[in-house]
Amino acid sequence: MRRLNSADVLTALYTQGPRTLTEISAETGLSRPTVEDVVEAFVRDRIVRELPPEPGSTGRPARRFRFAADGGFVAGIDIGVHKVLVVLADLEGEVRRVRRTTVEPGSGRAERLTAARETLAGCLDESGIPPGRLRAIGVGTPGVVQDGVVTLCTVLPGWSGLDLAGALTTAPADPAGAVPPVDGTGLPVIVENDANLATIAEHWRGAARDVRDAVCVLAGNRVAAGVIIGGRLHRGHRGGAGELGLLPVLRWEGAPDRLLAACPGSGDLAAVFAAARSGDARASAAVAGFTDDLATGTAALLLAVDPAAVVVGGGLSRAGDLIAEGLRDRLAALCPPPPEVRVSTLGDEAVATGAVHIALERATAGLFPDGLPIGSLPTR
Amino acid sequence: MRRLNSADVLTALYTQGPRTLTEISAETGLSRPTVEDVVEAFVRDRIVRELPPEPGSTGRPARRFRFAADGGFVAGIDIGVHKVLVVLADLEGEVRRVRRTTVEPGSGRAERLTAARETLAGCLDESGIPPGRLRAIGVGTPGVVQDGVVTLCTVLPGWSGLDLAGALTTAPADPAGAVPPVDGTGLPVIVENDANLATIAEHWRGAARDVRDAVCVLAGNRVAAGVIIGGRLHRGHRGGAGELGLLPVLRWEGAPDRLLAACPGSGDLAAVFAAARSGDARASAAVAGFTDDLATGTAALLLAVDPAAVVVGGGLSRAGDLIAEGLRDRLAALCPPPPEVRVSTLGDEAVATGAVHIALERATAGLFPDGLPIGSLPTR
Repeated sequence: MRRLNSADVLTALYTQGPRTLTEISAETGLSRPTVEDVVEAFVRDRIVRELPPEPGSTGRPARRFRFAADGGFVAGIDIGVHKVLVVLADLEGEVRRVRRTTVEPGSGRAERLTAARETLAGCLDESGIPPGRLRAIGVGTPGVVQDGVVTLCTVLPGWSGLDLAGALTTAPADPAGAVPPVDGTGLPVIVENDANLATIAEHWRGAARDVRDAVCVLAGNRVAAGVIIGGRLHRGHRGGAGELGLLPVLRWEGAPDRLLAACPGSGDLAAVFAAARSGDARASAAVAGFTDDLATGTAALLLAVDPAAVVVGGGLSRAGDLIAEGLRDRLAALCPPPPEVRVSTLGDEAVATGAVHIALERATAGLFPDGLPIGSLPTR
Repeated sequence: MRRLNSADVLTALYTQGPRTLTEISAETGLSRPTVEDVVEAFVRDRIVRELPPEPGSTGRPARRFRFAADGGFVAGIDIGVHKVLVVLADLEGEVRRVRRTTVEPGSGRAERLTAARETLAGCLDESGIPPGRLRAIGVGTPGVVQDGVVTLCTVLPGWSGLDLAGALTTAPADPAGAVPPVDGTGLPVIVENDANLATIAEHWRGAARDVRDAVCVLAGNRVAAGVIIGGRLHRGHRGGAGELGLLPVLRWEGAPDRLLAACPGSGDLAAVFAAARSGDARASAAVAGFTDDLATGTAALLLAVDPAAVVVGGGLSRAGDLIAEGLRDRLAALCPPPPEVRVSTLGDEAVATGAVHIALERATAGLFPDGLPIGSLPTR
C-alpha cells in the first residue's frame, strides 16, 4: 500500500511538474500527512527536491516540490544503416544533448559498434554529464531482437547473431569509447527493434499520444511497422509483431528499391520525393506506386489490428505528408471506413527517442511499478 | 480492499471447486477469519452454498463450501447462416441444455429472429429451467457489431443495421417465443461478432487455453478470424480486428466458393473434404488450393500480431486436421519459424460457447470485477 502511495505521489510530480503538498493531496486523493511522509522520504533519497519559496510571496509560503529530473541520465542510441544517433536525456526525458555520426551502409560489425561507442562518449563529453551518472542505455537496431541479441538482421552486415547488449556493456579496446560502468555493476543496456522503438516514441510524445491502439508504419530504405495495443507496445510472441515485409504479396519488401528503379539516376529516395513535390511527372508516378505498395501491407495490418490511428514515419518522414495523403486515399478504398492517417512528428529522431523511453523505464523501474507514466513534458 | 478479498475468495471457489475455509485461506493468502467473514456473507447472499459433511468423516468435519452454480443461468445463442444454436449453462458455465434449429440461408430478418426466440424458448422448456432464472443472454452473429447493433453483415439477408440486442429484448408477437424479463427490468442481451466469440471460446475452454496471445481462423462458408492479446479478446477500434477477408490479395474472400467451384457437383464443402480424405484426387487438389488461400491471409495475421498459436476452427472444423496439416506446411514457408497450428476442440458449438462466456461475464460482473476467471471446469 505504501509503495502504491509513493508511486501515485511521484507520478503526480513527474507528470504535472512542481506541486505543493496540498495540490498533490488533491490530485492523488491521499491525505496531506501521507503525502508529506512520502515526499519527505523521496527528498531524503534525492529523488524529489524542495524548491525555494517563490519570490514576492507574503506570509508563510506553501512548500513546493519537484521531481529531481537530474538525479540521473539515460542514453538512447539508434544504430541504423546510414547513421548512429545518440540522445541524452534526464530522468524526466528532457533531451540534454544529441549527437549524430554518419556510417557507411557496408560497414561491418566492429566498425558500427565502434561508431556507437564513440558517438555515445562524444555526446556525454559535449553534454558535460559525467559518464558515472548514466543510469541506463536503450538501443534501437533493425532486425529481430530477443533478450539483447539481434537474432536476425538482413540490412546490417555481420549483425545477425550479435549480442548487442553484451557488446555495448563490455569495454572495447579503445578506452575513449568505453561505456561507463555505474557503481561497478555495469550499466543496464536494453535493446529493441527500431520500428518498435519508433512506435513507442510516437505513443510517448509523437503523433499517437492520444490513442491506446495504434500502428506506426516506417518507410525508408525498408518498410517496417510497430503495434501499440492497450497503450503498450505489442511485441508479439517472438518479438515479430508488425513484420509484414516478410510476405511478398503485401508488397512492402522491395518497395523502396522499386521506387528508385522507377527513377533511374535520381539519386536517393529523398531526391525522388523532392522531385515529386516539385511536380516532376516521373517522380510523382513512382511515388504513387510506392504509396500503393505501402498501402497493401498497411491495409493488412489495419484489418488485423483495427487501430484508432496509423502514423507514417521512418527515414522518409520529411516526405510523410506526401505519403500520408496517398495512403489515405488508398486505405479508404481497401478497408473502409478510412482510418485516421497521421504523419510522424518526431522525424528521424523517433528511434532514438523510443530508446530513451525504454532506458527511462529501466532507470525508474523501482519508482514506477506500473511503467513510466506517459504524458507530455512537465511544465517548469 | 474488502471487495478485492471477496473476489479472491469467490475466484478460488469458482475455479477450484468445493473448498474448506483453511484451503481457501492457503490459496488466497488471506487470514482464516477474513475468509470466514467473506464466505458467510456470500452464503447469506446465496452465491455460495455450504456442503453437507462428507460421510464417514470422524470428529468435527471441516466445513466445505462451493460456488452456487445454479444461482442463475445464462444462454448463448449462435445465429448463423444455416442454423440457430442455443446453449444454456449455469453460472459456472456448465452446459445444461443445447438446442439446434436449421435455418435456410435465404431466410429474412423476421424469420431468423423468430427462429432464435423459438429455439431459446424450446431449450429453456426442455431444460426445466424457469425463464425467470436467466441472468443474461449472449448472442453471436456474422458481421460487424457495435453496441448490440449489426452495423454491416453481408451474409444474412436483411441483417445489416439490425438492433439485435433490442430485437431479442423486445417481446415478439408470439408469446411462446418471448425472451423472459428478469425482475421486470429486462434481461441483458450482449451481441458480438461470431468469429470473436469462437475465439473467446477457444481461449476459455478450447485449444488456446494455455496461451495469452492467439489468433483463431474460422473456415466455413466464409473465412474469418479473431485475435486474443494479453489473455483478452482484441476487438479493435471499430470491432473489426481480424477481418482480413476484406483485402482481396489475402485470398480469404471467395475461398470457399473457389473450393466448391473446383469440384462441381460435389455438394457442399463438407462433402469435398470427405472426398479428399478418402483419396479423391480432384477433391484433394481443391482442398490444397483452399488451404493455400487460407494460408495467405493467415500469414498476414501472424506477421501483424505474432501470436503464440493459431487455432483452426469454424464450420469446417471436422476437416480441421486436414486444413491444419496443410496450413503448417505453408505457414512454415511464408513466416518462418513456423507458428504452432492447433485444431479447434469445440466443433460447431464454439460460437455459442463464446456467447455463453460473454453472458456469464455480464451475469457475474458484480462478483468478479476483473472479469470471469478463466479456467477449466471445477471438479465436483
